[in-house]
Amino acid sequence: MENGYHVAVVGATGAVGTKMIQMLEQTTLPIKKVKLLASKRSAGKQLSFKGQLVTIEELVADSFEGVDIALFSAGGSISKTFAPEAVKRGAVVVDNTSHFRMNPEVPLVVPEVNKEALKAHKGIIANPNCSTIQMMVALEPIRQAVGLDRILVSTYQAVSGAGASAIEELQTQAKDYLSGKPADELKAEILPAGGDKKHYPIAFNALPQIDVFGEQDYTNEEWKMIHETKKIMSDDSLKVVATCVRIPVVMGHSESVYIETKDATTADALKELMKKAPGVVLQDDPSQQIYPQALTSMGKKETFVGRIRQDIDVENGFHLWIVSDNLLKGAAWNSVQIAETLHEMNLVRV
Amino acid sequence: MENGYHVAVVGATGAVGTKMIQMLEQTTLPIKKVKLLASKRSAGKQLSFKGQLVTIEELVADSFEGVDIALFSAGGSISKTFAPEAVKRGAVVVDNTSHFRMNPEVPLVVPEVNKEALKAHKGIIANPNCSTIQMMVALEPIRQAVGLDRILVSTYQAVSGAGASAIEELQTQAKDYLSGKPADELKAEILPAGGDKKHYPIAFNALPQIDVFGEQDYTNEEWKMIHETKKIMSDDSLKVVATCVRIPVVMGHSESVYIETKDATTADALKELMKKAPGVVLQDDPSQQIYPQALTSMGKKETFVGRIRQDIDVENGFHLWIVSDNLLKGAAWNSVQIAETLHEMNLVRV
Repeated sequence: MENGYHVAVVGATGAVGTKMIQMLEQTTLPIKKVKLLASKRSAGKQLSFKGQLVTIEELVADSFEGVDIALFSAGGSISKTFAPEAVKRGAVVVDNTSHFRMNPEVPLVVPEVNKEALKAHKGIIANPNCSTIQMMVALEPIRQAVGLDRILVSTYQAVSGAGASAIEELQTQAKDYLSGKPADELKAEILPAGGDKKHYPIAFNALPQIDVFGEQDYTNEEWKMIHETKKIMSDDSLKVVATCVRIPVVMGHSESVYIETKDATTADALKELMKKAPGVVLQDDPSQQIYPQALTSMGKKETFVGRIRQDIDVENGFHLWIVSDNLLKGAAWNSVQIAETLHEMNLVRV
Repeated sequence: MENGYHVAVVGATGAVGTKMIQMLEQTTLPIKKVKLLASKRSAGKQLSFKGQLVTIEELVADSFEGVDIALFSAGGSISKTFAPEAVKRGAVVVDNTSHFRMNPEVPLVVPEVNKEALKAHKGIIANPNCSTIQMMVALEPIRQAVGLDRILVSTYQAVSGAGASAIEELQTQAKDYLSGKPADELKAEILPAGGDKKHYPIAFNALPQIDVFGEQDYTNEEWKMIHETKKIMSDDSLKVVATCVRIPVVMGHSESVYIETKDATTADALKELMKKAPGVVLQDDPSQQIYPQALTSMGKKETFVGRIRQDIDVENGFHLWIVSDNLLKGAAWNSVQIAETLHEMNLVRV
């Protein structure tokens, strides 16, 4: 690196890609050049970076010549093909897709939780699933303090997790419904899962399917939360189960989380932990109706935690409400934060 | 009763009251006359019942002279004052408010679950909370077959549970947001709880508060689910905990429910139970993306159950997704069904 890194964003026009550019504008990472890569369709268009227009280039293997850090968010098949090409050309890849996450050679990193795992990277680092990241930020300090035996989570996920076209779909459906179109005539082509057979309206609805169905009638989104949690926390004995639900929210994933701790603790002790936890903002005052909300999390990098309370029946059982901007901490910000951490730990291969 | 009952609806112009009138149009209960009661403000207006216009009368104690069955849904303070007046005049009251629910002298009834409790009524029968009712319809057959040790529920509740003005609030906020109004300028005067100090937008948001906060930092909606479940299932040792969340849906409450059974069973056995359960429709085929949805539950009297699957870690643990129209089975239909059951069991005092 001379005067900063040459950073590429793959999938620069997508819902996450555009947020990655914003996060790179705010990062402490020294940057000398930004390269914006996308499909042929978007090549030639221009996007602003720190007040300068940058022309989008078509993604090809040689795009990565001279690139130090490449942030990928253009779908698993793009990452599968091009991440190794980027590594071959000397770049370190931070990949936001699910493609490499469970690969034992690829660190899966939430910087507040397991940045030490970065030391073993072989060129590719995976960014976890959005709904997993915010849960890890909130629960790791608890795991360290009193141990974790079990996690049961029900999610309330925003449509932006399914990309810019899903946001448009929700908005169009909502407008149509408010203009009097019956619910069964709302046009649905994307949600619950772009690649699945059937599509259902999300406006004024709740869909208990994110991604396609996998083993044992759990969806792949649910499996991601289960497997990724164990990998990030390095604990295969941890009990984790998820029910993942899409709701008509544009930005901000909310999670109703139940945990059982190994050691005895109290709701007040957990609140104290959250006050000190890196990346966490405690919003928990029932007397003033203070609790995290999707709308107020929008545009913020932190994970918001509230409604912390002891279970009525189980002594070591506790409930939490965890909210974060799924495109920022859940995707773009966590990726840029990984890049910052690689730099701080001197792990960018230049 | 000569040629049918004289039935009064108290709160006839409200979100639930209008549905009660619809349900009375469809009921098997013999009806000779319907009396529609509301506040002075609505008196004189007309509503249609079976094609005939009925003039709304102002609610006073003497309104109940000659009434056999009175369905109340006009708020707890109205029920407190006027339900005893109705009983004094010989009517049997089915009350949809929370006012009498935990009174040990008042049966709290979901007909599919505990209609025998009606035999002990002293004039007033309470209709449970909307989110409790649908959970009871789905879980009682499981409790009877394999026992229930524990219920953990996270709800996804529609705004219509907070009345017609909350529906209007959601729709106005959604229109404003879609027209470009920033989230922090959306006008909120009703949700999360009409009687509470602060109000937040519900459009494109999720609010982890329904009703005001009560003991141990649980909301009263959460306490209702806990206490009412134990009363309806007549089991104080049952472990029940709820996290209640409002989402931007007009009609249809959804619930992510985790249970632990006393005896060993399987997801397939639970599906078979649901197929035979009264009032339940099983919608559970991941291969065809079949699962219950708020939008498709609208206008239906049944409770829809799907996504039934065994927990990954706990042998007797199971997950279910339970959806029902909160204004019908959750309120108006359950009330009319109680009236039908009182008639069938010869428990209307005429």
